[in-house]
Amino acid sequence: MDRENRCIKVVIALGGNALHEAGTPPTAEAQLEVVRKTCKHLAEISCKGYEMAIVHGNGPQVGHILLAQEIAEKEDSNLPAMPFDVCGSMSQGYIGYQIQQCLRDALRGRNRDVPVVTILTQVVVREDDLAFQNPTKPIGPFYTEEEARNLIEKKNHVMKEDSGRGWRRLVASPSPIRIAEIGSVKRLWDTTIVITAGGGGIPVVENLDGSFKGVAAVIDKDLAAECLAENMETDFLLILTEVDKVSINYKKPDQQDLSHITVAEAIKYMQEGHFAPGSMLPKIMAAIKFARRFPGKKAIITSLDKSVEALEGRDGTIITMA
Amino acid sequence: MDRENRCIKVVIALGGNALHEAGTPPTAEAQLEVVRKTCKHLAEISCKGYEMAIVHGNGPQVGHILLAQEIAEKEDSNLPAMPFDVCGSMSQGYIGYQIQQCLRDALRGRNRDVPVVTILTQVVVREDDLAFQNPTKPIGPFYTEEEARNLIEKKNHVMKEDSGRGWRRLVASPSPIRIAEIGSVKRLWDTTIVITAGGGGIPVVENLDGSFKGVAAVIDKDLAAECLAENMETDFLLILTEVDKVSINYKKPDQQDLSHITVAEAIKYMQEGHFAPGSMLPKIMAAIKFARRFPGKKAIITSLDKSVEALEGRDGTIITMA
Repeated sequence: MDRENRCIKVVIALGGNALHEAGTPPTAEAQLEVVRKTCKHLAEISCKGYEMAIVHGNGPQVGHILLAQEIAEKEDSNLPAMPFDVCGSMSQGYIGYQIQQCLRDALRGRNRDVPVVTILTQVVVREDDLAFQNPTKPIGPFYTEEEARNLIEKKNHVMKEDSGRGWRRLVASPSPIRIAEIGSVKRLWDTTIVITAGGGGIPVVENLDGSFKGVAAVIDKDLAAECLAENMETDFLLILTEVDKVSINYKKPDQQDLSHITVAEAIKYMQEGHFAPGSMLPKIMAAIKFARRFPGKKAIITSLDKSVEALEGRDGTIITMA
Repeated sequence: MDRENRCIKVVIALGGNALHEAGTPPTAEAQLEVVRKTCKHLAEISCKGYEMAIVHGNGPQVGHILLAQEIAEKEDSNLPAMPFDVCGSMSQGYIGYQIQQCLRDALRGRNRDVPVVTILTQVVVREDDLAFQNPTKPIGPFYTEEEARNLIEKKNHVMKEDSGRGWRRLVASPSPIRIAEIGSVKRLWDTTIVITAGGGGIPVVENLDGSFKGVAAVIDKDLAAECLAENMETDFLLILTEVDKVSINYKKPDQQDLSHITVAEAIKYMQEGHFAPGSMLPKIMAAIKFARRFPGKKAIITSLDKSVEALEGRDGTIITMA
């Protein structure tokens, strides 16, 4: 990899650990400190000459926003809770602001004057996506059965009892079809680090007249990052998580870390059940999608710590077509 | 005014009535309906060939966000309230999302395919701004005296008794110095309608090493719009509010609506106390600043309904240097 080449493009998907450290309180102040550390790594990638866009998760943050609003609404009817798509837009504001600020500072600390901006992002999903027939993502607070039945009747929510802890709302996790603001991301890309599709993007469906309607759903952020990487035809899709490499037989005596796997191998391991749903599985699926779309290009799954080495082919798990 | 000229640039500052209609509930759904109407007007301006950026207020929305969080924190210590700068970033997400979505739809409805994006915006203020010595903007909930004394001691908040209704926190309203993300706004301007500096921008001060620190403050959105218009050297600063024209002796028998005033006249009326603080006064001050900076250019104060006519010189109040 030529370190001085300034045209190597990468979409970076940040995992939850890039925003929150286990054991720290869920305050914005504590998050800011974690984001500051994350951005030191991101600044290093930028200084190596990579052009990049950043996609981040928002699970705990949007959960916090929604919960706070549901509680406030119960206490004070003048404070109606916002719908879930709006909560998503708020989490994009919150997280984008912190990354934008800290990454600017980290780049300046390295005498690198690259602008960083957050673009509020809507991601189009299909109203007939089968995921809407089978909502799987629990969001918001726990309810009593009576409250749950009320919400099913009044708001048409899908509610499900959650292992004896109470009832929770479930929303669908549809596939990203396209990023509504991709044109602006493209216009800025050459000069600017863009934070986009935060939390997987605000999911919208197209009405018959082509207008948008926000929906209560969660788009997987790794799949949204893959959608962005496909659109931008980037050289790399870099998916960051807690581990340096993907493993088979994870946390078993015969765990085996993988340095390079083909799409065919990834599919085989996936079918053998090596990757946990909601954790490594969506990352593997995003990596497979990218590697399949662009034979010759690389999807990488690794940790923030190893990200530069992984881009240079010296660490992480690389997934390619052949 | 040449209607077909596509190079006329305007910064549009939206007033609170562009987002909320008196008497409607403070829900995101009700706001979306108002924003939809607002965007029909904005689309009309775009269709006349004006290139525009949009700045919006966020007072009621950021108040709602902060209040909900303070209530939730009281009920559940696992839901700590966010600091005020983060609440501002969340309000930019919320409002930006709705405007971005509705304006896209309104433009498409007119067969006009101009991209619309929200850029999350930090606005730099001076740490030694005198406003920090005299906080004037009440934010968040009412507290008892005991709670207030606690907040003064523990969080160093400035608290003030508010006409017998309880104690409230006051924050400063410093002047905007510069828009941190102005470079990206400039890069997008020619092709894209940019929503920026929402709520006046997230106020940040520069540390000694040049890094940013978010502060609890409120930047006036009309002054932030003026700052943007100065930077972009736009042809117009268009400040939208509830009335079609600025008046002297407002709501008195001898009320007189103003069609065109000079900076000198505006200052005279201002000194005579014709303009209410927190209402028309900051709009007049922003208009004066713009007209003074660019003799020959026009600041306009009018309503959404009259905005096109006002840009064409046929309605509203125009403020110019001479």
